[in-house]
Amino acid sequence: MKTISENACFGGVQGVYSHRSDSCDCDMTFGLFLPAEAKDGPVPVLWYLSGLTCTHENAMVKAAAQGWAAEQGIALIFPDTSPRGEGVADDDAYDLGQGAGFYVNATQKPWAPHFQMYDYVTKDLTDLVLKEFPIDGARQAITGHSMGGHGALTMAMKEAGRFTSVSAFAPICNPTGSDWGKKQLTAYLGSDEAAWASHDASLLMAERGFDGPVLIDVGTKDQFLDLLKPETLASAAAQRRQELTFRMQPGYDHSYFFVSTFIEDHITFHAEALYA
Amino acid sequence: MKTISENACFGGVQGVYSHRSDSCDCDMTFGLFLPAEAKDGPVPVLWYLSGLTCTHENAMVKAAAQGWAAEQGIALIFPDTSPRGEGVADDDAYDLGQGAGFYVNATQKPWAPHFQMYDYVTKDLTDLVLKEFPIDGARQAITGHSMGGHGALTMAMKEAGRFTSVSAFAPICNPTGSDWGKKQLTAYLGSDEAAWASHDASLLMAERGFDGPVLIDVGTKDQFLDLLKPETLASAAAQRRQELTFRMQPGYDHSYFFVSTFIEDHITFHAEALYA
Repeated sequence: MKTISENACFGGVQGVYSHRSDSCDCDMTFGLFLPAEAKDGPVPVLWYLSGLTCTHENAMVKAAAQGWAAEQGIALIFPDTSPRGEGVADDDAYDLGQGAGFYVNATQKPWAPHFQMYDYVTKDLTDLVLKEFPIDGARQAITGHSMGGHGALTMAMKEAGRFTSVSAFAPICNPTGSDWGKKQLTAYLGSDEAAWASHDASLLMAERGFDGPVLIDVGTKDQFLDLLKPETLASAAAQRRQELTFRMQPGYDHSYFFVSTFIEDHITFHAEALYA
Repeated sequence: MKTISENACFGGVQGVYSHRSDSCDCDMTFGLFLPAEAKDGPVPVLWYLSGLTCTHENAMVKAAAQGWAAEQGIALIFPDTSPRGEGVADDDAYDLGQGAGFYVNATQKPWAPHFQMYDYVTKDLTDLVLKEFPIDGARQAITGHSMGGHGALTMAMKEAGRFTSVSAFAPICNPTGSDWGKKQLTAYLGSDEAAWASHDASLLMAERGFDGPVLIDVGTKDQFLDLLKPETLASAAAQRRQELTFRMQPGYDHSYFFVSTFIEDHITFHAEALYA
């Protein structure tokens, strides 16, 4: 692991590190905020998965999360959204390839050799941060924005028992039924739709749900509402009687101005679960 | 005036607008955050002047200021740091020309036709925002970062009576004695150092001071401490018996991670003066 930068931030440290990922077979970069409490021993952690076109940097710089994490004594991890580098496949579209890993393990050419983002987050990066930093693996929570909201919700439901709580900002809720999903799931997983179901938050909600609290925020003026399909997830959660807070926030759009407005609520929500 | 974007943000609106500046003789872009209270009538305003290489966007996206401004019912204005555009002079160096206006009115070629940033902020943009938005001109405060801290301090002292309070993050405190200053003041104002004095916060502090509270934060690990010369300003303020809080913050550097950590303190500080 290589340290790229470390900046003092709210009494803790905002670091950026790179490391070799076996799953993605390339070097990966991530951001990690450690609160002051980490000097004294392991702290709980909140994963933040970013959206299309983002890197490890966007949320770290624009979500205004560190102050609230510092107040709660919680670490934040900001993974990248895809493998990157010269040998890594890419596409001209903003929503496929580099910057658009969709948090799945690709099985199709040309993506399969590097696009293993599900395993990268849940295995490689998890193992690394638990080994290298004072983070309490028994107290993990997860959130994300847009494509990262999809990642957070699907990982939380698939990795049962790992996360105390899950939240999302404007998540892609039903990729098997959306142009933000069909194209990418076809490219990464192939045209057999049976392989897609385990990466669709609404289908997972209907099938298994989440054993803990769920918080979802979506802006009523989100320019991508038709692609996100929050109604599908809300419906599935209600039918399941899932513990859930689902909020449509009047006037807000898809931007980080929306995320930063509600990040305090999300971190407080996760803190309650992490410290329960 | 043209609206470039408006995003809901902490119950208010984060807008970006462009307009024609007579002083700079070109189109200029600025950011403006209006809190929810602006719907009901004029609100106090805090100016935020940015540093070298920044645009109107950096602080608006990275300083995490809007949440605290919303809590206090205060508007935020984020001006650009220089004139821009095809007909506008520039330099290959990051610290001269576009992105580096130093908040002075240039008198020298090739800068004089457009680089009139002192008048742009204190006249053109002030007139525009007071005319176009519900902002209370009688309740203005000013802050800034690095080159923008220099701008905030010098404007606050020169425009006596206009600002209730002034603060700065890692300001350039003594440009007449620093490589962050001598080069630019020579280029913009000429080699006669007499013309520089009225743009040096330490000299202005010694000569006239500020009629109100002053708050300065500087990181002890700021990589530009030798260029900022905070000791010169601290000394001048102490000799003058200026009302002042001057803090060296252990471990912090020059980045926006430093700014965002202490922005709450600065906005609270200004709110006390604006609502006094």
